[in-house]
Amino acid sequence: MKRFDDTTELLLQLGDSAMIQAQRLCELVGGAPALEEEVALMNVGLDLVGQARNWLEYAAERIDDGRTADDLVFLRDQGEYRNLLLVEQPNGDFAMTMAKQFLFDAWHKPLLEKLCNSSDERIAGIAAKSIKESSYHIRRSSEWIKRLGDGTHESHERMQRALDQIWHFTFELANPYELFNTLDTDNIAPGIKALCKEWQAIVATILAEATLTQPETAENNYLSGREGVHTENLGFVLAEMQFLQRAYPNASW
Amino acid sequence: MKRFDDTTELLLQLGDSAMIQAQRLCELVGGAPALEEEVALMNVGLDLVGQARNWLEYAAERIDDGRTADDLVFLRDQGEYRNLLLVEQPNGDFAMTMAKQFLFDAWHKPLLEKLCNSSDERIAGIAAKSIKESSYHIRRSSEWIKRLGDGTHESHERMQRALDQIWHFTFELANPYELFNTLDTDNIAPGIKALCKEWQAIVATILAEATLTQPETAENNYLSGREGVHTENLGFVLAEMQFLQRAYPNASW
Repeated sequence: MKRFDDTTELLLQLGDSAMIQAQRLCELVGGAPALEEEVALMNVGLDLVGQARNWLEYAAERIDDGRTADDLVFLRDQGEYRNLLLVEQPNGDFAMTMAKQFLFDAWHKPLLEKLCNSSDERIAGIAAKSIKESSYHIRRSSEWIKRLGDGTHESHERMQRALDQIWHFTFELANPYELFNTLDTDNIAPGIKALCKEWQAIVATILAEATLTQPETAENNYLSGREGVHTENLGFVLAEMQFLQRAYPNASW
Repeated sequence: MKRFDDTTELLLQLGDSAMIQAQRLCELVGGAPALEEEVALMNVGLDLVGQARNWLEYAAERIDDGRTADDLVFLRDQGEYRNLLLVEQPNGDFAMTMAKQFLFDAWHKPLLEKLCNSSDERIAGIAAKSIKESSYHIRRSSEWIKRLGDGTHESHERMQRALDQIWHFTFELANPYELFNTLDTDNIAPGIKALCKEWQAIVATILAEATLTQPETAENNYLSGREGVHTENLGFVLAEMQFLQRAYPNASW
């Protein structure tokens, strides 16, 4: 597995996670439970595509092997993707879709806050542009967690089941990652060592308000999205996402 | 849309339908309700892959533009596929999976019977090799229609719902297709004009035994798998099925 410098790995993790989360949201075109929600889901997806573009353009410049951001998105295979395992999992029902979005947002927003103070001005600039969008994302997704968790018997059951099912993949969010230590020391991502604790605190607070039971701590295992060791789900996402460029190389609008 | 001679179009329709039906069955690996059923579904899929290979090898020879059967499977886009619309639809639950299989088998087996008498010895030979397999397929799928239709309240409801949902795509099976007229006259597929009536008779008999209600006659519309005008579902099937050859051109074992 190709391994870049820590900053580039962080850019790929941010860009790939935003891109795959957006791709999953796009699968819901025409399938949301209400038109208003459909528009909201697509807006979130569009925000994330824009953020992914910014992160991956910078990553492509740093990698400097001739590939563009588009090449990184459309021509890498799954072992080269650095997204969180969480975002590649299937949408399931609306409860699962919102559970995934919230657990992602609770990692994404505090991470962007830290990156606003990055000593790398390019990173600080992209983070500052993204933070407003992601603040809206978590406000919306946490409201849905509460509305469904503290709603009817049926909605509570479905949200609890979604959390129980998806929880396994939160081990990447709940545990510190050694890569981040150097980024913290170098002030690329100051304070990032504390990210996992903040994630845990946000999640604990919202789940309590939503009268939901937090599943047992997720154990790490051999999988690691950050190191390119993915579940089979990512392959199916990429097959769809990359079809056009794979079938018609260099096609453009 | 590229249009070949009638015999080649028939070969593509047979090969593509078998291939896409097999690909849908393969999606169920690890997802069947019982191990015995899983093995049976995969056996049916494997039979159909073998049949598809035979039809498409002959089609490739007739098209004679340098493409092999593998090229036809892995490098054609959806407008060039000639499969029945029925087989590209999603698997849904087990009732839907078996409903689709049965409606396909009720077209497939009588068609193969006619092709056993083809004046084209190559076609007659492939049909004769395939007929035993497809006789087993329809015996199994029609038994499931009856077992679920005439089973519990729940199983009856789900099989009826599956039929109601998928019925729309049977207009290709229930209506005569002008292409077949010339094939009938030429003795390439003798008696094929009567195929739609046989399909209707088989389906009516089994649904009656299964205490299921046959939905209203499906109306034709602008879609036509036989002419390459497909539902969006085929694109997703092909994206997965063709990923390896598209991402790694000319890859081989």
